[in-house]
Amino acid sequence: MVQEVRNALAAMDEIAAPWQPHRLTSINDYDVKLAKFDGEFVWHTHPDTDEFFLVLAGSITIRMRDRDVELGPHDVFVVPRGVEHCPTAAAEASVLMFEPRTTVNTGDAGGDRTQRVRELP
Amino acid sequence: MVQEVRNALAAMDEIAAPWQPHRLTSINDYDVKLAKFDGEFVWHTHPDTDEFFLVLAGSITIRMRDRDVELGPHDVFVVPRGVEHCPTAAAEASVLMFEPRTTVNTGDAGGDRTQRVRELP
Repeated sequence: MVQEVRNALAAMDEIAAPWQPHRLTSINDYDVKLAKFDGEFVWHTHPDTDEFFLVLAGSITIRMRDRDVELGPHDVFVVPRGVEHCPTAAAEASVLMFEPRTTVNTGDAGGDRTQRVRELP
Repeated sequence: MVQEVRNALAAMDEIAAPWQPHRLTSINDYDVKLAKFDGEFVWHTHPDTDEFFLVLAGSITIRMRDRDVELGPHDVFVVPRGVEHCPTAAAEASVLMFEPRTTVNTGDAGGDRTQRVRELP
């Protein structure tokens, strides 16, 4: 793969709809993904991996069963493996995620919000 | 480890000097590190891992033997494993890196620029 510089914020303009993970680049067997968050996702768990969130623009809430965390620009948070969570955003937000290449966006929940990782143009 | 929200840009204020990697958080066996870049680092190679760079503030140049790449805020770049590189910055820049926990900042080069990863307060 030819490595080129990509602007994570500019790349968000290529994403048409919320909750669609797009691969920005890869490191070893991990993907760096971008997604727009808007509204409420689904409660789910990743039993085998932690999940890293970095907000690029806007703000999000990650709901967990015992607490919620609020993230704004440049805020980072890791949902530990096995912790049930539901990402939400009151308005459109731009988010960067690190996770193993095989991670499915809906984790163990499945259902119609499950999206394959798309490639950016 | 209790997971808390950290602001990557605010955390840079805790870093006293350039070229000192600090652990912002971890995902599985990977670290998310912060460092200030200022001046020229050393030419080195990571034979066993790709290395991810995201510029938070300022701008940097990653020199490689066949080309240089310039990165500004929100720009990302992956140096593939085995590719010799020398990070530089004409003025202080704030950079987030993602790499396996065992990665040494000077790769195969070693020498007095080698720094253990420090913990943020």
